[in-house]
Amino acid sequence: MAFGLKHLLGLEGVKREDLESILNAADSFREVIDRPIKKVPTLRGVTVLNLFYEPSTRTKLSFELAEKRLSADVLNFATKGSSVSKGETFKDTVRNIEAMKIDMIVMRHNCSGAPKFLTEFSSSRVINAGDGTHEHPTQALLDMLSIRRKYGKLDGLRVVIVGDILHSRVARSNIWGLKTMGASVAVCGPSTLLPVGAEKMGIDVFTDINKALDGADVVNVLRLQLERQQAGLLPSLREYRNLFGITRERLRLLNKNYTVMHPGPINRGIELSSEVADGDDSVILDQVTNGVAVRMSVLYLLSGGGKKEDE
Amino acid sequence: MAFGLKHLLGLEGVKREDLESILNAADSFREVIDRPIKKVPTLRGVTVLNLFYEPSTRTKLSFELAEKRLSADVLNFATKGSSVSKGETFKDTVRNIEAMKIDMIVMRHNCSGAPKFLTEFSSSRVINAGDGTHEHPTQALLDMLSIRRKYGKLDGLRVVIVGDILHSRVARSNIWGLKTMGASVAVCGPSTLLPVGAEKMGIDVFTDINKALDGADVVNVLRLQLERQQAGLLPSLREYRNLFGITRERLRLLNKNYTVMHPGPINRGIELSSEVADGDDSVILDQVTNGVAVRMSVLYLLSGGGKKEDE
Amino acid sequence: MAFGLKHLLGLEGVKREDLESILNAADSFREVIDRPIKKVPTLRGVTVLNLFYEPSTRTKLSFELAEKRLSADVLNFATKGSSVSKGETFKDTVRNIEAMKIDMIVMRHNCSGAPKFLTEFSSSRVINAGDGTHEHPTQALLDMLSIRRKYGKLDGLRVVIVGDILHSRVARSNIWGLKTMGASVAVCGPSTLLPVGAEKMGIDVFTDINKALDGADVVNVLRLQLERQQAGLLPSLREYRNLFGITRERLRLLNKNYTVMHPGPINRGIELSSEVADGDDSVILDQVTNGVAVRMSVLYLLSGGGKKEDE
Repeated sequence: MAFGLKHLLGLEGVKREDLESILNAADSFREVIDRPIKKVPTLRGVTVLNLFYEPSTRTKLSFELAEKRLSADVLNFATKGSSVSKGETFKDTVRNIEAMKIDMIVMRHNCSGAPKFLTEFSSSRVINAGDGTHEHPTQALLDMLSIRRKYGKLDGLRVVIVGDILHSRVARSNIWGLKTMGASVAVCGPSTLLPVGAEKMGIDVFTDINKALDGADVVNVLRLQLERQQAGLLPSLREYRNLFGITRERLRLLNKNYTVMHPGPINRGIELSSEVADGDDSVILDQVTNGVAVRMSVLYLLSGGGKKEDE
Repeated sequence: MAFGLKHLLGLEGVKREDLESILNAADSFREVIDRPIKKVPTLRGVTVLNLFYEPSTRTKLSFELAEKRLSADVLNFATKGSSVSKGETFKDTVRNIEAMKIDMIVMRHNCSGAPKFLTEFSSSRVINAGDGTHEHPTQALLDMLSIRRKYGKLDGLRVVIVGDILHSRVARSNIWGLKTMGASVAVCGPSTLLPVGAEKMGIDVFTDINKALDGADVVNVLRLQLERQQAGLLPSLREYRNLFGITRERLRLLNKNYTVMHPGPINRGIELSSEVADGDDSVILDQVTNGVAVRMSVLYLLSGGGKKEDE
Repeated sequence: MAFGLKHLLGLEGVKREDLESILNAADSFREVIDRPIKKVPTLRGVTVLNLFYEPSTRTKLSFELAEKRLSADVLNFATKGSSVSKGETFKDTVRNIEAMKIDMIVMRHNCSGAPKFLTEFSSSRVINAGDGTHEHPTQALLDMLSIRRKYGKLDGLRVVIVGDILHSRVARSNIWGLKTMGASVAVCGPSTLLPVGAEKMGIDVFTDINKALDGADVVNVLRLQLERQQAGLLPSLREYRNLFGITRERLRLLNKNYTVMHPGPINRGIELSSEVADGDDSVILDQVTNGVAVRMSVLYLLSGGGKKEDE
């Protein structure tokens, strides 16, 4: 069946069959990157632009690697926080770059909605690599892939996301994706860092970490942005650690075959203790590997790969 | 017939047959970049260094894309405004990089003549990507390609270049190239921004935009560097717009099948109104596409492609 | 015979047969880079990360070029002087990047021992591109290659290294490598810039340049870091030049068929006069070319090339 997406702007509203296509192709690409020769000619002659309006190391490296392993021609364009409110300038920049016949644009922007805006005047396929506090779909997909590779499924699992849910595009994408795939989702954090009306997303909302972890299979621990404290949203890092930090003791509340995840980089000793981060039930480094596979998969499917080569 | 140039330092003195070779090959490469697979193996194993002593986004991306689509190995070296007056350092830097067996160097420099100086001690093929206020030959070639692709010729057309002619390497290269190809050229701008004795280049010089546009086929509108005002060369941006801004009304003075060009980025509402920039007779985005094709063509011909593969 | 190294952290303790394998393969790669098509498919599908914690232009370009000419997929990660004392962060960064399935890491770091530390938790092959004042093995290998290509041997030659031996990772790697290959090594510099107990490395130590040069075949002149003067280690640049600067007159003390080397960039007129740097007996630019060949060789051998393709 044909892949249903033209762009990957977020996971909200994406059909289960399309999520499954991405995860299935990612499984295949995961095999490719475990080989000595990690390269396939899939995107040969296809030009991909990494358009980063927000600093990034890991996500950018991961996409760049995915593109190169698919044999794409890669262009990088990084610039400091420009505002979409200066719409003309942004639009002119992108239209100009695109006139060089760019096939796909991977875009990170500090404004929510910037990748969607891009699709309104661009003829390229667009992949959202994180926009403001909106979505970060490839991160959620790599989280989902990591869970599915461990349990063989997502259906019926219970996933708890802990931390600053309010500002987290990672949380938001995970919620949409996991629910579509049949998982049950809870979030937990200080009430100042929980979105108002989060329950309406069909999830359970906790401010008590012990209640949140009880009976869950997976705990996905978000990075605490340390500037939240200056903003008055947190009393102290020590209190955050005491109330929400994931330690070995707290893991006992989870189901037996539990999994610890973190999108990185970790504040060790704050949201996550080192022994948990490096423990046997942590799949944190596996998430990074799966990130490359998921991005290869999304690039491949959006470029029409599903049609040209599979059907 | 063999391509006559070893380097592309400027269009002054370049023979018509060599300009035609570049434009003809660019037409072929334009077809390549309209294909799904935009890559040819022409420069496989050839090393190209992009040596940028002046900040650049678009020109650098365009060259990099051209090089990658020709399958060259690309190295980037960007550094802040170093002076050729510190000749030893500049010379040592380049000779060292070149000892790594670089085949071609694409160079932008804030000093007029820097690429020429480079050819005196370098054994690489050199392409000028803009030097001071001297020349920017690939920009003029892409302008000429855009005109030729629309009208099927350059001979007998009338092209008006509007703006800061005095400081413009784009204007200078266009004048030399267009005249060699048989076009008639006029320039128009405030008298403070016109070179003294411009008539000696064999062009018409105007300070009245209405007279300049009258009977022309193409208007090529230069970007106004906003710092010219601080330098006292302009009374105000508003006055510049009133006297020289290209608006829909002024276009009526042109010949019927007219064309609007701009090398980008545009100051919308100053030298060019948005409705003109985005109008049907604007080829501004087409210029950008043609830029990649022209640069592929120049790289190909200077690398000896004309000899090895065509003859 | 199989190549004996898993990583290239330094030349101290490396066996003569492994040094010879590197130099022999480098001779072959030197032929490759003198060809019009400078590319071989040796590392196709292999991912190499250039991890630079210290600014670098030449070494980084040289490695990048070596990697691209071997058809590797190249990732660059450059960051400002981070300290290994913040071990966790450094470790997390590298383990994360490596989880993207990096095969080889080329690392430069301002702390001595950082590449060795890296091998303790990384499964990638590691190449030291310069660590603190410890070693810079590929620089020494390119120096040795340059000597061997001129004399056909290293055995029995006398090499004098002149300058700031104390802080020089280049000197240190040269001493270990040259001695293993049977050359005799002397060092010469101001007593404030000589390591205490240098004689224990099996070398001759001089503070009188005339005595040091007498009867030597090769003089390898180190770059004087101009900040050494501010640090009070040098009375003045003029005095340094007078006492240690290599001029044409001083070269008369060397053996007849002598060679002048410098790792670059040169402070012309301080440690080396221009006429010597550019003279017939200088192999300074040849060193740069050989640098690419040596790095191709090391990448090839560490990737297992010696096994897979030769045996």
